[in-house]
Amino acid sequence: MCQNHGVAYIKPGVVEVQSIEYPKLALGDRKCHHGVILQIVSTNICGSDQHMVRGRTTAPAGLILGHEITGLVIEAGRDVEFIKEGDLVSVPFNIACGRCRNCKVGQTGICLNVNPSRPGAAYGYVDMGGWVGGQAEYVMVPYADFNLLKFPDKDQAMAKIRDLTLLSDIFPTGYHGAVTAGVGPGSIVYVAGAGPVGLACAASCHLLGAAVVIVGDMIPERLEQAKSFGCEVIDLRKETPLADQIAEIIGVPEVDCAVDCVGFEARGHGASAGTEQPATVLNAAMTITRAGGAIGIPGLYVTGDPGASSEAAKEGNLSIRIGLGWAKSHSFYTGQCPVMKYHRQLMNTILYDKIQIAKAVNVEVISLDRAPKGYQDFDKGAAKKFVIDPHGLIPN
Amino acid sequence: MCQNHGVAYIKPGVVEVQSIEYPKLALGDRKCHHGVILQIVSTNICGSDQHMVRGRTTAPAGLILGHEITGLVIEAGRDVEFIKEGDLVSVPFNIACGRCRNCKVGQTGICLNVNPSRPGAAYGYVDMGGWVGGQAEYVMVPYADFNLLKFPDKDQAMAKIRDLTLLSDIFPTGYHGAVTAGVGPGSIVYVAGAGPVGLACAASCHLLGAAVVIVGDMIPERLEQAKSFGCEVIDLRKETPLADQIAEIIGVPEVDCAVDCVGFEARGHGASAGTEQPATVLNAAMTITRAGGAIGIPGLYVTGDPGASSEAAKEGNLSIRIGLGWAKSHSFYTGQCPVMKYHRQLMNTILYDKIQIAKAVNVEVISLDRAPKGYQDFDKGAAKKFVIDPHGLIPN
Amino acid sequence: MCQNHGVAYIKPGVVEVQSIEYPKLALGDRKCHHGVILQIVSTNICGSDQHMVRGRTTAPAGLILGHEITGLVIEAGRDVEFIKEGDLVSVPFNIACGRCRNCKVGQTGICLNVNPSRPGAAYGYVDMGGWVGGQAEYVMVPYADFNLLKFPDKDQAMAKIRDLTLLSDIFPTGYHGAVTAGVGPGSIVYVAGAGPVGLACAASCHLLGAAVVIVGDMIPERLEQAKSFGCEVIDLRKETPLADQIAEIIGVPEVDCAVDCVGFEARGHGASAGTEQPATVLNAAMTITRAGGAIGIPGLYVTGDPGASSEAAKEGNLSIRIGLGWAKSHSFYTGQCPVMKYHRQLMNTILYDKIQIAKAVNVEVISLDRAPKGYQDFDKGAAKKFVIDPHGLIPN
Amino acid sequence: MCQNHGVAYIKPGVVEVQSIEYPKLALGDRKCHHGVILQIVSTNICGSDQHMVRGRTTAPAGLILGHEITGLVIEAGRDVEFIKEGDLVSVPFNIACGRCRNCKVGQTGICLNVNPSRPGAAYGYVDMGGWVGGQAEYVMVPYADFNLLKFPDKDQAMAKIRDLTLLSDIFPTGYHGAVTAGVGPGSIVYVAGAGPVGLACAASCHLLGAAVVIVGDMIPERLEQAKSFGCEVIDLRKETPLADQIAEIIGVPEVDCAVDCVGFEARGHGASAGTEQPATVLNAAMTITRAGGAIGIPGLYVTGDPGASSEAAKEGNLSIRIGLGWAKSHSFYTGQCPVMKYHRQLMNTILYDKIQIAKAVNVEVISLDRAPKGYQDFDKGAAKKFVIDPHGLIPN
Repeated sequence: MCQNHGVAYIKPGVVEVQSIEYPKLALGDRKCHHGVILQIVSTNICGSDQHMVRGRTTAPAGLILGHEITGLVIEAGRDVEFIKEGDLVSVPFNIACGRCRNCKVGQTGICLNVNPSRPGAAYGYVDMGGWVGGQAEYVMVPYADFNLLKFPDKDQAMAKIRDLTLLSDIFPTGYHGAVTAGVGPGSIVYVAGAGPVGLACAASCHLLGAAVVIVGDMIPERLEQAKSFGCEVIDLRKETPLADQIAEIIGVPEVDCAVDCVGFEARGHGASAGTEQPATVLNAAMTITRAGGAIGIPGLYVTGDPGASSEAAKEGNLSIRIGLGWAKSHSFYTGQCPVMKYHRQLMNTILYDKIQIAKAVNVEVISLDRAPKGYQDFDKGAAKKFVIDPHGLIPN
Repeated sequence: MCQNHGVAYIKPGVVEVQSIEYPKLALGDRKCHHGVILQIVSTNICGSDQHMVRGRTTAPAGLILGHEITGLVIEAGRDVEFIKEGDLVSVPFNIACGRCRNCKVGQTGICLNVNPSRPGAAYGYVDMGGWVGGQAEYVMVPYADFNLLKFPDKDQAMAKIRDLTLLSDIFPTGYHGAVTAGVGPGSIVYVAGAGPVGLACAASCHLLGAAVVIVGDMIPERLEQAKSFGCEVIDLRKETPLADQIAEIIGVPEVDCAVDCVGFEARGHGASAGTEQPATVLNAAMTITRAGGAIGIPGLYVTGDPGASSEAAKEGNLSIRIGLGWAKSHSFYTGQCPVMKYHRQLMNTILYDKIQIAKAVNVEVISLDRAPKGYQDFDKGAAKKFVIDPHGLIPN
Repeated sequence: MCQNHGVAYIKPGVVEVQSIEYPKLALGDRKCHHGVILQIVSTNICGSDQHMVRGRTTAPAGLILGHEITGLVIEAGRDVEFIKEGDLVSVPFNIACGRCRNCKVGQTGICLNVNPSRPGAAYGYVDMGGWVGGQAEYVMVPYADFNLLKFPDKDQAMAKIRDLTLLSDIFPTGYHGAVTAGVGPGSIVYVAGAGPVGLACAASCHLLGAAVVIVGDMIPERLEQAKSFGCEVIDLRKETPLADQIAEIIGVPEVDCAVDCVGFEARGHGASAGTEQPATVLNAAMTITRAGGAIGIPGLYVTGDPGASSEAAKEGNLSIRIGLGWAKSHSFYTGQCPVMKYHRQLMNTILYDKIQIAKAVNVEVISLDRAPKGYQDFDKGAAKKFVIDPHGLIPN
Repeated sequence: MCQNHGVAYIKPGVVEVQSIEYPKLALGDRKCHHGVILQIVSTNICGSDQHMVRGRTTAPAGLILGHEITGLVIEAGRDVEFIKEGDLVSVPFNIACGRCRNCKVGQTGICLNVNPSRPGAAYGYVDMGGWVGGQAEYVMVPYADFNLLKFPDKDQAMAKIRDLTLLSDIFPTGYHGAVTAGVGPGSIVYVAGAGPVGLACAASCHLLGAAVVIVGDMIPERLEQAKSFGCEVIDLRKETPLADQIAEIIGVPEVDCAVDCVGFEARGHGASAGTEQPATVLNAAMTITRAGGAIGIPGLYVTGDPGASSEAAKEGNLSIRIGLGWAKSHSFYTGQCPVMKYHRQLMNTILYDKIQIAKAVNVEVISLDRAPKGYQDFDKGAAKKFVIDPHGLIPN
């Protein structure tokens, strides 16, 4: 049990499975008696990992990736009281202490005690506190009593593990985008982006009772995936303006609310397709959201982007038509999803068959060895969510 | 009673009191049997009028200004049922039908039935539906049963008219900024701008129980005014960064939330003082608001600004460091204040002496003839709120 | 067009179709130029009508029943501006002026201007303002611009009229119960009562994303109906305590929240079945709702009940175990559903096929002549929602 | 440091200061490495202690009382990470683990892990988990990182300790009552009861911006106390009905919302004064709250009351006129205040001089020896809040 392997970032475009240290109940000098060691049952490749792998961040070579983790507790620190060895648990990607003022009000995405350089931390991510990533066989989870969601029945959970594995990040993240945008029964929503978060958001909109869910993207396979569970779709490669395409579907050129599931690596639509236009999704969202609507922004925007195409964008300054939003009394919700706010209820929606989230995002289970291939396929726009099964525990 | 005079916009920098038409219960061909004619008791000059008068909009010559109106009902249309002749009433600056889906949910700032060109209308404002302004002796108010707030006792109200006149716009507007920023008991708030809206916002923060209200501006008289009712102040002309000035006051460089009471005509701070920097307040707000905080934006941002200093800004595109807000999980609230949502409760705070709002914004009553002088003084940065008394009804 | 027929309450247990006056744009001396005359397309029998028909109220003989109305505008008063002749509209059962402080904040169930004796009014109901009921061929709807919801496409609407007819009361009412109880994605809910409101509530819980919806009743046909769309059911005639029956379904004896869709005519469960026990549903709800949960109470409780079984209950005093709720930090939400708050969104859920509400409540369309028979069958506990089609307009 | 003395309940009407065990980091067999030992700086006598001391509960002889605790950390368990020896801290009266689903959403009053017999626990209280009370020299506080609020500056805090000592219970509890009743700027509120919680609630209403705060009680000294900080008062011994007394103050017989700060030991008003009428405050609150208003219920109601005057009340069944509330669409909020939800913000209101809460509730500091006398005086209705200073640390 003292061996471990994990997916390491090597250089732009390259990741590699390496032998890595078996986890300790510590982060450097910081003791983590409140932590547990997990045998990882499933760990997913995330779109935000791609920002690092594409070289759009300052991630150092050797960083072990992976923040979407589900696992079995195999060792519990001396101060862990309620989580027990043998528990099968979902790990929120945000690491949180459960003791600071932000955690106490549920803002676990901006915990004050887990990252010396800024509020908020995550496993296996640059500038996120240095916690070792979980695209691996084993990982350490601190503040286990607070962070972990225990599945009530292990056998039942293993039978639905393809769905439950999505509770660590993209299901809550997509859902958070929908909730902050104000989606509810009868809403007409536009979801920008049909990657895994966009698809999870679209499925969440349906769960929340939305009447019409319109998904826009430039990759036909991803749009097909969205269609497969009842979404309307818009191919953004067309030159027809987005508002007109929306009007073709619902009769008017405006929706009730919009969710940006793309973030700062957005590309131009229609005529300007292909070039990077980091504010294009935000500006489009204001254009097509009706007055009084809200815009949820789970898509990542960064404070600095060394690989950006303009000097301003390198500093994180984007050219946003804020006056348009102002004229329409829009409100805007940004930031990491605080997973803990939602994961228990969303677990119930999976366990009681209210949603087929794995199907919606098209989960494909791969072995740890195949992780580098998964990264490549995902980068090419595969309409899939890759779930790594490092111990071969996931049933077919 | 068939004469009328009003303040007309003539050209950039020039307004003039003119003889104007006595109001009818109509707007052009549109009958307004639901409207009333008011004898105006008080009507205030607003900072947003200045945008027009400075030539920063496409306002046509001859436009009658004025959207902050309090008056006496002297004629009621046949469809008016609950408002009666003789009632003393406050007029929300947003014109609203009370019958569309937005009005029904309290979003009276974006009524769908009062402006053919876009949601939302106001009296005496460019692109706001063509309704005649109320810096005049008489004005017509449509949908009177819905729009008007009747004061319960006329004598009591006349005794507090300097305060009550602020219910038509800036008191609710400043309050809305505070509410959307999440201000409540114990909050530590930064208010950008010490003009009348900024001062009304600061006083509202105190009303809402804020522990510390810090107001920033570049005009010493306005800062003195803020100090007079218990605010901390920051002189933005200093080269010390804003965050450091905040740390000098509260020990840390971040506040709980921020309100932008400036808008698109913002100017650079400190070293870059004097040049116009339309996104500077928004970017500063993100810098000094703690993670998880909200930013209220009652300050006006426009979709187009012909007088802007850059091509992008002329289109309303501002260079916003959205990634900074995203990293801090900020939320942003824009748009006109829906006055009706707040005016009744705020009336009570005045009538029962919970707030001295006229004193906070330094009301000065002037005659209608003196309106052009009021515009000039206000434009120069006078730390005053000018209230026009067209009939000499306001007691000393 | 000048004839009219309607369902009149005659005496306990007896209703009768009578020739009645064709509606005027007035209520007695009160002119209603803001009103419209509707040709009624559908009008439903409601459980709350039964309280009157059973003689449990002071309803006078001759009262024309009916507050669930959908119809075609055939005449519009001179002050109606946005609703037009020919519009097909849903009428919220609460009559509201759209101009009082309660209407302005969406509390249309307690409008201050439509009932001289207390806040709130309805069509065809005792003590509710004297407005003529709509189980008839024609009816007058006041404040039409405010009250009415226009269907966007008449043909589409007629094709779904069995569903849309439920927007006037029971769909929003059941939904309101669910919303106030805090139902959302993943909730585990108990709905007391499988009459039409209970079934509509259960269907609304599913729409809102609930994971498990448990419905309790004592009529097997109604429980079968609940099962038909995915609810778990509990037969309250069994002697097994409710909490134990719940534990059999979900493994624990407590749900997240509960909705009382029964009201004051509740009867004892299990061993005490049959006797009237007006507080039994409320007390059961506290027993089986977990600490921190909320209890929605759309079921009617009255201020006086001449037919009650105890002196206290005649005064409306019920023996409630409030200390139990207090120990569990419960919150309680009472009152008429403000239909307007929900009907537009719920219309969308019908038009876009997100819900099969007519099927859930088992709509049966009957002619006006058959209304007395409908009342009888409903009183006997038929698991049906009777919809009267006075003009034979509803397609098969 | 190994001695300790505390206030013990002996029998109805009798408490006594005893030598008690010095605290351990444990509760019986349950280890509390997450706990700290406090040297108690201040500890208050609470109205809810009186229920025990009057013999209205099943509290056993020898129970050490006291759940309102402020102190200095003198020993920290091995799992305590952020709280340090020497910190001066406020202890929320609700004991909470910070790790269960209720704590994670801020419902610390119903923590699932600190009381085997039901959700929720407190120090020194019957049926509340067996945790030793803090009317003593030393006490153990479990889950210290989660529970404790550290004052930022010890000297500043000691200078305001009379105010800050109220953060452990009655200030947040009164505030919670106001918040749940919907009090905000401009509200007109009725507060039932002018004991310490009622006075704290009234002061909180002012802090929240209420326009008029009306306090009712039957003890003239307590009403004088309420008057001293700007409340209107009603003497409930008068035979004039409450609604009429309210109308004398504000012109109408209804308020916007009401807070029940009395609970189950309520006594009849006016003509029926003196007899115990446990539902009288709730029924009065419904009578005088306008339609649409909310009723906050921080006053304690119990599931069983062996000393009650009727058989029903002994089971906790009260005769409540729920139909009245239903007709007025009231909502009701019960339960222990989750102190942690509010204490940080309220601390700021004290530290920045926004409220004089000690003055409002008339704090009187007494030595530990004088605790029995304090209990007696408080029971007689002294308009005082007794704060015990067990180590003589509180400056004059």
